[in-house]
Amino acid sequence: MAETVPDMRELGAELRNWGRWGPGDERGTTNLITPERVAAAARLARTGTVFDLGIPLDGDGPQPGGARINPIRLMSENGQEQVLPGGFRWADDYVFMPLQSASQYDGLAHVMYDEQLYNGRPAGSVTVKGAGYNGIHHQAKGIAGRGVLLDIARLRGVDWLAAGEVIGPDDLDAACAAQGVEVGPGDILLIRTGYRKKFLTERDPVEFMKGEPGLGLESARWLHARDVAVVGSDNWAVEVLPGEHDGALFELHMVLIRDMGMTLAELLDLEELAEHCAGDGVYEFFYAGPPLKFTRGIGSPINPLALK
Amino acid sequence: MAETVPDMRELGAELRNWGRWGPGDERGTTNLITPERVAAAARLARTGTVFDLGIPLDGDGPQPGGARINPIRLMSENGQEQVLPGGFRWADDYVFMPLQSASQYDGLAHVMYDEQLYNGRPAGSVTVKGAGYNGIHHQAKGIAGRGVLLDIARLRGVDWLAAGEVIGPDDLDAACAAQGVEVGPGDILLIRTGYRKKFLTERDPVEFMKGEPGLGLESARWLHARDVAVVGSDNWAVEVLPGEHDGALFELHMVLIRDMGMTLAELLDLEELAEHCAGDGVYEFFYAGPPLKFTRGIGSPINPLALK
Amino acid sequence: MAETVPDMRELGAELRNWGRWGPGDERGTTNLITPERVAAAARLARTGTVFDLGIPLDGDGPQPGGARINPIRLMSENGQEQVLPGGFRWADDYVFMPLQSASQYDGLAHVMYDEQLYNGRPAGSVTVKGAGYNGIHHQAKGIAGRGVLLDIARLRGVDWLAAGEVIGPDDLDAACAAQGVEVGPGDILLIRTGYRKKFLTERDPVEFMKGEPGLGLESARWLHARDVAVVGSDNWAVEVLPGEHDGALFELHMVLIRDMGMTLAELLDLEELAEHCAGDGVYEFFYAGPPLKFTRGIGSPINPLALK
Amino acid sequence: MAETVPDMRELGAELRNWGRWGPGDERGTTNLITPERVAAAARLARTGTVFDLGIPLDGDGPQPGGARINPIRLMSENGQEQVLPGGFRWADDYVFMPLQSASQYDGLAHVMYDEQLYNGRPAGSVTVKGAGYNGIHHQAKGIAGRGVLLDIARLRGVDWLAAGEVIGPDDLDAACAAQGVEVGPGDILLIRTGYRKKFLTERDPVEFMKGEPGLGLESARWLHARDVAVVGSDNWAVEVLPGEHDGALFELHMVLIRDMGMTLAELLDLEELAEHCAGDGVYEFFYAGPPLKFTRGIGSPINPLALK
Repeated sequence: MAETVPDMRELGAELRNWGRWGPGDERGTTNLITPERVAAAARLARTGTVFDLGIPLDGDGPQPGGARINPIRLMSENGQEQVLPGGFRWADDYVFMPLQSASQYDGLAHVMYDEQLYNGRPAGSVTVKGAGYNGIHHQAKGIAGRGVLLDIARLRGVDWLAAGEVIGPDDLDAACAAQGVEVGPGDILLIRTGYRKKFLTERDPVEFMKGEPGLGLESARWLHARDVAVVGSDNWAVEVLPGEHDGALFELHMVLIRDMGMTLAELLDLEELAEHCAGDGVYEFFYAGPPLKFTRGIGSPINPLALK
Repeated sequence: MAETVPDMRELGAELRNWGRWGPGDERGTTNLITPERVAAAARLARTGTVFDLGIPLDGDGPQPGGARINPIRLMSENGQEQVLPGGFRWADDYVFMPLQSASQYDGLAHVMYDEQLYNGRPAGSVTVKGAGYNGIHHQAKGIAGRGVLLDIARLRGVDWLAAGEVIGPDDLDAACAAQGVEVGPGDILLIRTGYRKKFLTERDPVEFMKGEPGLGLESARWLHARDVAVVGSDNWAVEVLPGEHDGALFELHMVLIRDMGMTLAELLDLEELAEHCAGDGVYEFFYAGPPLKFTRGIGSPINPLALK
Repeated sequence: MAETVPDMRELGAELRNWGRWGPGDERGTTNLITPERVAAAARLARTGTVFDLGIPLDGDGPQPGGARINPIRLMSENGQEQVLPGGFRWADDYVFMPLQSASQYDGLAHVMYDEQLYNGRPAGSVTVKGAGYNGIHHQAKGIAGRGVLLDIARLRGVDWLAAGEVIGPDDLDAACAAQGVEVGPGDILLIRTGYRKKFLTERDPVEFMKGEPGLGLESARWLHARDVAVVGSDNWAVEVLPGEHDGALFELHMVLIRDMGMTLAELLDLEELAEHCAGDGVYEFFYAGPPLKFTRGIGSPINPLALK
Repeated sequence: MAETVPDMRELGAELRNWGRWGPGDERGTTNLITPERVAAAARLARTGTVFDLGIPLDGDGPQPGGARINPIRLMSENGQEQVLPGGFRWADDYVFMPLQSASQYDGLAHVMYDEQLYNGRPAGSVTVKGAGYNGIHHQAKGIAGRGVLLDIARLRGVDWLAAGEVIGPDDLDAACAAQGVEVGPGDILLIRTGYRKKFLTERDPVEFMKGEPGLGLESARWLHARDVAVVGSDNWAVEVLPGEHDGALFELHMVLIRDMGMTLAELLDLEELAEHCAGDGVYEFFYAGPPLKFTRGIGSPINPLALK
């Protein structure tokens, strides 16, 4: 049932976590992943079955060009023309890529509005040299903890939701109920919209990037109430696009990243994991998804593991 | 006591794992990390204390230039010049880097000799497009399992070993005994030489890359006998340099990667972990170090987590 | 009138310049630009009017992604965060780009067939390290000489020719006659199809790259008979696409580059120059278009000047 | 004889060309290269002898790493793994490079002080997106005109001047007299210090970049009085380093680029040209050195031609 969509700035003010972990905090909601929760989460790796949630990094990815391109990996050495002692020959490669072109974290310097970043830092602190505050390297010790998958596509009985379809608190509650799982403090919550399947089926970056199903603004309250640490999805921006307000853009990004200090995980591949969870009915797992430690970086490519 | 250094080609033939996991295998010794071992390893995360073993990716890294450079991260957006609906502003960044310039895996297509790669693949299968076989993406579901740290610098009572100092089976045995830990099948073995501390102390890439302390050839037998899955170190090539035979180069690379099919982890930062292990006397932990899924890639940057 | 389209391999054998400038030659038809011809050409700069024939290097270029992308220029310094003696501040930038993504030369290592390059060099001499022979750096002292524009779009009275439209010897002769100009030895011949105007009008890289009007195979004989040194165009491959033979690809490239040893200039902007030539009736000029000296490079971005 | 070194800010105020070519000008002193001067200059190409003044773009260049690296060119295609209709095979390459890592222009957005760029533009107009004003693309129709070489190393009878050696007005006058050449309005003036020979002899980027001989501050008056359009050199910053005032940095850059609006050409190879000029006694020539049209770029790599 269509509820009133919250005003973004009011919602941001309501859910703002600035100062919650101190005035100098640069980590935001990953502070919620306490050692106790990590230890408890590790015990969810019961059978040692591993799922890799990253998508391949190559030229066949979802970027249509423009602001971001797919990673370009080029060989610098392949053994040709090498004459080295003892017959040793070697291969090596380089990559040029946006840090947010494939499976990735959006760090806390990624989004700003009204001249501020998370924890009240000035927007101008993001310079040509990178993030003066809230750089992705502050997440270096993470992100590992309890993961929960909510399979909204399965809940709705579709291969994938359509672009513009809003996922709201009711959907999240319904998925929890249907799956028999609860979402709690410090969790890494993964939302499956089926959009990865759409891409794998259609292989059309332009179509894939036109819009997407995803979380609506109201869901921010739901995440905040449960103290979720990280939210990830198989779409490219976690949130629904086009958004719920005409004339606005990435409003959930603004509330989650800038106000709540929440790291997002995007462009994940949840297909194999979802299949397995549907099979055994277990939708929780140990999530281990460390970012690369790009000093002052805005984001990081990732290949998170889910261990059941 | 100085033993005779094995002949590299004889040693390679002796320890060769080709065919052991089937003629089509492209993963090598990470096959040893079975689900059972993963599940058991996860239980080592007892307190949820997390150590990040990756070094920072920035311009102050250990690469002196030449074949490899330090990562160059550049901003494409920082909010400047953006006029977007609703006040949304964003930052984004790109990186250009060798896949093996910071903490990294050496994949199984990284080294060849006598015209062959691991599992008998032809050297020519590594083309300008990348690894035809043994690409790093085949390690996508890993590398997670039981980690063991052997702190050789501590064993010898030095800040760091000197370039050219060989770490042999006796050292490994002595470290196991001193630390009260055993190394077994499927383990990810991390060798601390102290060379990261050397770099952090001296901040001199040219000096750092001149040579290094590390494993000698004989240690390959030790690793093979215990069915170690992955060996990593805080130096840049795992093995001792200059090597044990004049007129030879990277002989242990050739045996480990090409013959045994072992993935290596290099340029790790083991300082904080080692300090902690010395404190509580526990040298085993859960290691979660997924590579990025570079299709046909030779290596991957990593930031492995050690969880105790 | 439709003539029979020559067989590519027969035509290549007929027009082959291998050995013409010695067995070790790596420059091909630019050998035809003798000092005397350069000096004579310089006198064509009568009024000092300068036309820049390069297209802009930025994200709005004609590359749709895939094998080639538009240049990505990123700032490394813009004065932010600099505190330097005396108040000095500076800006700096990097580029990542295919060497053939904008106005460019195709060097003589760009095309191969039947295992050979220009002058009989083995195809395998182009390795992961670049051109073993015929690298673009061999054109370092050029390319400067007499330029001639043949404006085929104007001849046909259209804004631009359509993709697949063949430009043949009759068109070239007709343009020479209509324009009152002759094409001779050592000339840099520029063919205007209007396709740059098409791109500027439509701004659609995908459409632009689908095909193009251009020279047909028979024109190779015409160029060879006149000892043209370099042929350039405002399309992206000089030659007509789709080509004249079903089941073949870039046949004129194969004859011109591999057999004749001719450097091509592509993706030029001839609009302003053509307008001026139509105004004063003078279709010859001094052309100065040096490549960058990429050692072992396959091509080079260029911004050639036409001076009248 | 040691004269008093001018105060930089006073000198800048004295020689400032802001507004000289209109309030909206973004080209600076290249406005002095009028069509008449271009036409006259072209007649200096008397014998058609061509000299290429660019240095090679490859990994053996003068950049020691840090702020700038040598160009990294990598192959994306070399014919391997291609199965294309008609036997066509092709090679292609990419480059990643600072725009000012080899022979280059410093554009007019390269240097700022006291919050302003050339022609009074605000320093803040150079953003993460590039030059808001004075971008290198504004030099697209150039730089071609009369070139004059002043061979100071030859004048002093040395292979190369030492780092820190100042070239002053007296040296420039003496070189003009010794060579029988005059420098006038719109000229592209090339200063040979021999520092390219030093690099070619020593092949030591760190040593090469430690300092350099070059123009002193007083020379700015000399250049201004003669309305020189562009000054270039075989060193890496045109000016003497360390500079003439303690506690100051790149003062001549500030005066020439920011106040006078002069484009600089750096890291040229003047060896072959100088040898020829010494042989025939002719030190003037036609200079054709177009920059690549990087939209909003700070600089551009170049390979200028000198034609005699």
